[in-house]
Amino acid sequence: RCHHRSVAMLDIPFPTFCAFLGSLGLLCVALVSAWCQHWRGGFSLDGGSRTFNWHPVLMVTGLVVLYGAAALVYRVPSTWSGPKLPWKLLHGGLALGAFVLTVLGLAAVFSFHNSRGTSNMYSLHSWIGLGTVLLFSCQWAAGFGAFLLPWAPAWLRELYKPIHVFFGSTILMMSVASCVSGINEKLFFSLKNGTTEYKLLPAEAVFANTLGILILLFGLLVMGALARPSWKRPDSSSLDSRQVPGTR
Amino acid sequence: RCHHRSVAMLDIPFPTFCAFLGSLGLLCVALVSAWCQHWRGGFSLDGGSRTFNWHPVLMVTGLVVLYGAAALVYRVPSTWSGPKLPWKLLHGGLALGAFVLTVLGLAAVFSFHNSRGTSNMYSLHSWIGLGTVLLFSCQWAAGFGAFLLPWAPAWLRELYKPIHVFFGSTILMMSVASCVSGINEKLFFSLKNGTTEYKLLPAEAVFANTLGILILLFGLLVMGALARPSWKRPDSSSLDSRQVPGTR
Repeated sequence: RCHHRSVAMLDIPFPTFCAFLGSLGLLCVALVSAWCQHWRGGFSLDGGSRTFNWHPVLMVTGLVVLYGAAALVYRVPSTWSGPKLPWKLLHGGLALGAFVLTVLGLAAVFSFHNSRGTSNMYSLHSWIGLGTVLLFSCQWAAGFGAFLLPWAPAWLRELYKPIHVFFGSTILMMSVASCVSGINEKLFFSLKNGTTEYKLLPAEAVFANTLGILILLFGLLVMGALARPSWKRPDSSSLDSRQVPGTR
Repeated sequence: RCHHRSVAMLDIPFPTFCAFLGSLGLLCVALVSAWCQHWRGGFSLDGGSRTFNWHPVLMVTGLVVLYGAAALVYRVPSTWSGPKLPWKLLHGGLALGAFVLTVLGLAAVFSFHNSRGTSNMYSLHSWIGLGTVLLFSCQWAAGFGAFLLPWAPAWLRELYKPIHVFFGSTILMMSVASCVSGINEKLFFSLKNGTTEYKLLPAEAVFANTLGILILLFGLLVMGALARPSWKRPDSSSLDSRQVPGTR
């Protein structure tokens, strides 16, 4: 009796979790937009710093929030039975939307750097960020080829599925690490003068640090939801567990 | 036949994985030490920049490598049967060692900042880093109270176990995000002059960026090993899956 009661306390319903996570994701998008609009001069396409401002907004929206939504599609219980194709199209479509925003986000920062003659691709942030986008492009192409095109044999799909799942989480963790290092770096670049120095913790620094914490929280909640056994498709772990008797 | 062959291709033996992961962890410790020794002036306890140098070394060694080893203890098949206490002591002991190194790592950076009159705790790196250490202290204390002290009732252990597992991964992801943002930040601080500017990608920048990538890889491999169904204790997911019939 005690056991059932205690375990039930942890049993957050999936729709409640999704409503909370969706609100948190929208909050992240709103905050990163507000940061760029209010403190960093807003948005334009002129190649200047207001072009750069699209970079954080598009990356948070695409590579974190929309990507997280795509990752969680197969945790919706309705996807566990009936025709799979509509859910595959939703998963692949959300991921494609995330990828398009991500590529636009890369275009924003390269266009800003190139128009000012600044170097590209030297910071650890840029290395991990570009690595994330490259992995994401491989992930999308391989997922499309294996799961959406009709020609892949069943054994190939079965072989590739756990790899796709592993890299799905990997890409999300990398994109969160990229966001955190990017916000940190941007604040050191931007907050340099007098009373607005980063180390004096002006309002903008508190605001953008909080944004970074919320992006991290969003990523951790998606990872937690993906890992939660009772939210997985009931048969989804059978592939991996079948390895035990077969091979070891 | 095809299915068994294809799945067997993914079946890396756990000891091989551990040997690789252990080498990667030692490499991270060696590289962060070499960075601080060769380019950042080495180590001392005088409160200057050579005191700061203990910070990255202790954090990578404690909060990433030793922490990762502690996290993987229950993936060793010998822990799945027989008396649990020795393994609990190993898990708790490794985590305590990681925690002690982490606290010394905090002491190094605070002592450096205070001796120079620099502000503490303003960057996103510092917020996420301190958050990681605070969570880790709660995790260790709660784990000790629930699993090592003999007084916790079984229902409490069962309630707390999935929470402990979730925060175990959370803390690792946060510590990797802290390392990445910290290395990025340190390189912007240190590489400022003439031919060694960060954006000119001098040898130190390539070296430390590579270190950041390897730390990220270490964290991702630990997360992947923790998530791999066939490496979990065979009954370990039963708590969570029991939620389904009982409560929903």
